[in-house]
Amino acid sequence: MMPKVARIAWLYDFYGKLLTDKQQNIIELYYNQDLSLGEIAEENKISRQAIHDIIRRAEAALEEYEEKLGMLKKYLYQTAIYQEILDILDGPQPCEEKIAGVREKINKLMAYTEEEVREE
Amino acid sequence: MMPKVARIAWLYDFYGKLLTDKQQNIIELYYNQDLSLGEIAEENKISRQAIHDIIRRAEAALEEYEEKLGMLKKYLYQTAIYQEILDILDGPQPCEEKIAGVREKINKLMAYTEEEVREE
Repeated sequence: MMPKVARIAWLYDFYGKLLTDKQQNIIELYYNQDLSLGEIAEENKISRQAIHDIIRRAEAALEEYEEKLGMLKKYLYQTAIYQEILDILDGPQPCEEKIAGVREKINKLMAYTEEEVREE
Repeated sequence: MMPKVARIAWLYDFYGKLLTDKQQNIIELYYNQDLSLGEIAEENKISRQAIHDIIRRAEAALEEYEEKLGMLKKYLYQTAIYQEILDILDGPQPCEEKIAGVREKINKLMAYTEEEVREE
Protein backbone atom coordinates (compact mmCIF):
# COMPACT_ATOMS: atom_id res chain seq x y z
CA MET A 1 0.00 0.00 0.00
CA MET A 2 1.20 3.47 -0.90
CA PRO A 3 1.10 5.96 2.04
CA LYS A 4 -1.88 8.30 1.82
CA VAL A 5 0.16 11.47 1.35
CA ALA A 6 2.05 9.94 -1.57
CA ARG A 7 -1.16 8.60 -3.09
CA ILE A 8 -2.92 11.97 -2.96
CA ALA A 9 0.14 13.65 -4.46
CA TRP A 10 0.07 11.14 -7.35
CA LEU A 11 -3.67 11.53 -7.87
CA TYR A 12 -3.23 15.27 -7.84
CA ASP A 13 -0.55 14.96 -10.54
CA PHE A 14 -3.00 13.05 -12.71
CA TYR A 15 -6.33 14.74 -11.98
CA GLY A 16 -5.45 18.10 -10.44
CA LYS A 17 -6.63 19.98 -13.52
CA LEU A 18 -10.16 18.67 -12.93
CA LEU A 19 -10.37 20.30 -9.49
CA THR A 20 -11.63 23.85 -8.98
CA ASP A 21 -9.03 26.63 -8.80
CA LYS A 22 -9.63 26.98 -5.08
CA GLN A 23 -9.20 23.24 -4.49
CA GLN A 24 -6.02 23.21 -6.58
CA ASN A 25 -4.62 26.16 -4.68
CA ILE A 26 -5.25 24.65 -1.26
CA ILE A 27 -4.08 21.15 -2.18
CA GLU A 28 -0.86 22.71 -3.51
CA LEU A 29 -0.27 24.55 -0.25
CA TYR A 30 -1.10 21.57 1.92
CA TYR A 31 0.52 18.70 0.00
CA ASN A 32 3.23 20.29 -2.09
CA GLN A 33 4.30 23.22 0.05
CA ASP A 34 3.55 21.43 3.29
CA LEU A 35 1.78 24.31 5.02
CA SER A 36 -0.38 23.52 8.06
CA LEU A 37 -4.17 23.93 8.10
CA GLY A 38 -3.71 26.93 10.38
CA GLU A 39 -1.24 28.62 8.03
CA ILE A 40 -3.47 28.05 5.00
CA ALA A 41 -6.50 29.32 6.95
CA GLU A 42 -4.68 32.49 7.88
CA GLU A 43 -3.42 33.08 4.35
CA ASN A 44 -6.91 32.59 2.88
CA LYS A 45 -8.72 34.42 5.68
CA ILE A 46 -11.14 31.55 6.25
CA SER A 47 -11.49 29.13 9.17
CA ARG A 48 -9.28 26.14 9.79
CA GLN A 49 -12.39 23.95 9.59
CA ALA A 50 -13.29 25.34 6.16
CA ILE A 51 -9.79 24.54 4.87
CA HIS A 52 -10.10 21.06 6.32
CA ASP A 53 -13.41 20.54 4.51
CA ILE A 54 -12.04 21.78 1.19
CA ILE A 55 -9.10 19.36 1.45
CA ARG A 56 -11.36 16.43 2.34
CA ARG A 57 -13.69 17.17 -0.57
CA ALA A 58 -10.79 17.55 -2.99
CA GLU A 59 -9.29 14.24 -1.83
CA ALA A 60 -12.66 12.53 -2.30
CA ALA A 61 -12.96 14.00 -5.80
CA LEU A 62 -9.46 12.75 -6.71
CA GLU A 63 -10.28 9.25 -5.45
CA GLU A 64 -13.52 9.29 -7.43
CA TYR A 65 -11.68 10.23 -10.64
CA GLU A 66 -9.23 7.39 -10.01
CA GLU A 67 -12.10 4.98 -9.48
CA LYS A 68 -13.63 6.04 -12.81
CA LEU A 69 -10.48 6.50 -14.91
CA GLY A 70 -7.75 4.48 -13.18
CA MET A 71 -4.82 6.53 -14.51
CA LEU A 72 -2.64 5.90 -11.45
CA LYS A 73 -3.38 2.17 -11.47
CA LYS A 74 -2.54 2.00 -15.17
CA TYR A 75 0.64 4.04 -14.70
CA LEU A 76 1.91 1.78 -11.91
CA TYR A 77 1.09 -1.33 -13.93
CA GLN A 78 2.83 -0.09 -17.05
CA THR A 79 5.96 1.20 -15.35
CA ALA A 80 6.33 -2.11 -13.46
CA ILE A 81 6.28 -3.98 -16.78
CA TYR A 82 8.71 -1.53 -18.39
CA GLN A 83 11.07 -2.26 -15.51
CA GLU A 84 10.58 -6.01 -15.97
CA ILE A 85 11.54 -5.61 -19.62
CA LEU A 86 14.69 -3.69 -18.72
CA ASP A 87 15.53 -6.46 -16.22
CA ILE A 88 15.15 -9.05 -18.99
CA LEU A 89 17.39 -7.02 -21.31
CA ASP A 90 20.05 -6.75 -18.59
CA GLY A 91 19.67 -10.37 -17.50
CA PRO A 92 21.96 -13.37 -18.01
CA GLN A 93 19.74 -15.29 -20.48
CA PRO A 94 20.80 -16.09 -24.04
CA CYS A 95 19.74 -13.35 -26.46
CA GLU A 96 16.97 -15.35 -28.12
CA GLU A 97 15.35 -15.99 -24.75
CA LYS A 98 15.40 -12.29 -24.01
CA ILE A 99 13.56 -11.66 -27.27
CA ALA A 100 10.89 -14.18 -26.29
CA GLY A 101 10.56 -12.67 -22.82
CA VAL A 102 10.19 -9.13 -24.15
CA ARG A 103 7.59 -10.27 -26.68
CA GLU A 104 5.50 -11.78 -23.92
CA LYS A 105 5.65 -8.59 -21.85
CA ILE A 106 4.69 -6.38 -24.80
CA ASN A 107 1.74 -8.63 -25.61
CA LYS A 108 0.70 -8.35 -21.97
CA LEU A 109 0.88 -4.55 -22.14
CA MET A 110 -1.18 -4.47 -25.32
CA ALA A 111 -3.81 -6.87 -23.94
CA TYR A 112 -4.03 -4.81 -20.74
CA THR A 113 -4.53 -1.57 -22.63
CA GLU A 114 -7.23 -3.05 -24.85
CA GLU A 115 -9.02 -4.52 -21.88
CA GLU A 116 -8.89 -1.28 -19.93
CA VAL A 117 -10.31 0.60 -22.86
CA ARG A 118 -13.12 -1.87 -23.40
CA GLU A 119 -13.89 -2.03 -19.70
CA GLU A 120 -14.33 1.71 -19.56
CA MET B 1 -6.35 12.86 -38.40
CA MET B 2 -8.81 10.43 -36.90
CA PRO B 3 -12.38 10.88 -38.25
CA LYS B 4 -14.62 12.70 -35.77
CA VAL B 5 -16.96 9.77 -35.15
CA ALA B 6 -14.05 7.48 -34.29
CA ARG B 7 -12.48 10.12 -32.09
CA ILE B 8 -15.65 10.70 -30.09
CA ALA B 9 -16.11 6.93 -29.71
CA TRP B 10 -12.55 6.67 -28.32
CA LEU B 11 -13.00 9.63 -26.01
CA TYR B 12 -16.26 8.12 -24.81
CA ASP B 13 -14.43 4.86 -24.06
CA PHE B 14 -11.98 6.76 -21.90
CA TYR B 15 -14.11 9.42 -20.26
CA GLY B 16 -17.72 8.20 -20.63
CA LYS B 17 -18.01 7.52 -16.91
CA LEU B 18 -17.49 11.23 -16.20
CA LEU B 19 -20.57 12.22 -18.22
CA THR B 20 -24.05 12.44 -16.69
CA ASP B 21 -26.30 9.37 -17.01
CA LYS B 22 -28.44 11.20 -19.57
CA GLN B 23 -25.40 12.19 -21.65
CA GLN B 24 -24.06 8.63 -21.50
CA ASN B 25 -27.40 7.21 -22.56
CA ILE B 26 -27.76 9.51 -25.55
CA ILE B 27 -24.15 9.19 -26.69
CA GLU B 28 -24.56 5.39 -26.57
CA LEU B 29 -27.67 5.55 -28.75
CA TYR B 30 -26.16 8.00 -31.21
CA TYR B 31 -22.58 6.76 -31.53
CA ASN B 32 -22.70 3.10 -30.55
CA GLN B 33 -26.17 2.06 -31.66
CA ASP B 34 -26.20 4.48 -34.56
CA LEU B 35 -29.73 5.82 -34.02
CA SER B 36 -30.70 9.10 -35.71
CA LEU B 37 -31.44 12.30 -33.78
CA GLY B 38 -35.12 11.83 -34.71
CA GLU B 39 -35.24 8.28 -33.35
CA ILE B 40 -33.51 9.28 -30.10
CA ALA B 41 -35.84 12.27 -29.74
CA GLU B 42 -38.90 10.07 -30.15
CA GLU B 43 -37.62 7.46 -27.69
CA ASN B 44 -36.85 10.11 -25.05
CA LYS B 45 -39.94 12.22 -25.76
CA ILE B 46 -37.94 15.40 -26.15
CA SER B 47 -37.25 17.54 -29.20
CA ARG B 48 -34.70 16.73 -31.88
CA GLN B 49 -33.01 20.04 -31.07
CA ALA B 50 -32.70 19.14 -27.38
CA ILE B 51 -31.02 15.82 -28.31
CA HIS B 52 -28.70 17.69 -30.65
CA ASP B 53 -27.74 20.08 -27.85
CA ILE B 54 -27.10 17.25 -25.37
CA ILE B 55 -24.82 15.52 -27.87
CA ARG B 56 -22.88 18.71 -28.62
CA ARG B 57 -22.40 19.44 -24.93
CA ALA B 58 -21.31 15.87 -24.24
CA GLU B 59 -18.80 16.00 -27.11
CA ALA B 60 -17.42 19.29 -25.80
CA ALA B 61 -17.08 17.79 -22.31
CA LEU B 62 -15.20 14.77 -23.71
CA GLU B 63 -12.82 17.02 -25.64
CA GLU B 64 -12.24 19.09 -22.52
CA TYR B 65 -11.35 15.99 -20.50
CA GLU B 66 -8.94 14.95 -23.23
CA GLU B 67 -7.35 18.38 -23.19
CA LYS B 68 -6.84 18.15 -19.43
CA LEU B 69 -5.93 14.46 -19.07
CA GLY B 70 -4.72 13.33 -22.52
CA MET B 71 -5.59 9.64 -22.07
CA LEU B 72 -6.29 9.09 -25.78
CA LYS B 73 -3.11 10.86 -26.81
CA LYS B 74 -1.10 8.77 -24.34
CA TYR B 75 -2.80 5.56 -25.45
CA LEU B 76 -2.03 6.20 -29.12
CA TYR B 77 1.57 7.09 -28.32
CA GLN B 78 2.14 4.00 -26.20
CA THR B 79 0.50 1.51 -28.57
CA ALA B 80 2.52 2.91 -31.49
CA ILE B 81 5.74 2.27 -29.55
CA TYR B 82 4.61 -1.21 -28.48
CA GLN B 83 4.08 -1.97 -32.15
CA GLU B 84 7.54 -0.58 -32.99
CA ILE B 85 9.02 -2.92 -30.39
CA LEU B 86 7.22 -5.93 -31.89
CA ASP B 87 8.53 -4.87 -35.31
CA ILE B 88 12.07 -4.80 -33.93
CA LEU B 89 11.62 -8.25 -32.37
CA ASP B 90 10.32 -9.63 -35.70
CA GLY B 91 12.93 -7.79 -37.77
CA PRO B 92 16.02 -9.07 -39.59
CA GLN B 93 18.63 -7.48 -37.30
CA PRO B 94 21.13 -9.51 -35.28
CA CYS B 95 19.78 -10.36 -31.82
CA GLU B 96 22.06 -7.96 -29.95
CA GLU B 97 20.88 -5.07 -32.10
CA LYS B 98 17.29 -5.94 -31.28
CA ILE B 99 18.12 -5.76 -27.58
CA ALA B 100 19.62 -2.30 -28.05
CA GLY B 101 16.60 -1.16 -30.10
CA VAL B 102 14.12 -2.38 -27.49
CA ARG B 103 16.06 -0.74 -24.67
CA GLU B 104 15.88 2.59 -26.47
CA LYS B 105 12.11 2.28 -26.95
CA ILE B 106 11.48 1.34 -23.31
CA ASN B 107 13.55 4.29 -22.12
CA LYS B 108 11.48 6.48 -24.42
CA LEU B 109 8.25 5.11 -22.93
CA MET B 110 9.49 5.69 -19.39
CA ALA B 111 10.67 9.22 -20.14
CA TYR B 112 7.34 10.01 -21.80
CA THR B 113 5.35 8.76 -18.84
CA GLU B 114 7.44 10.72 -16.35
CA GLU B 115 7.16 13.85 -18.42
CA GLU B 116 3.40 13.52 -18.79
CA VAL B 117 3.03 13.07 -15.06
CA ARG B 118 5.20 16.06 -14.23
CA GLU B 119 3.50 18.20 -16.83
CA GLU B 120 0.10 17.53 -15.30
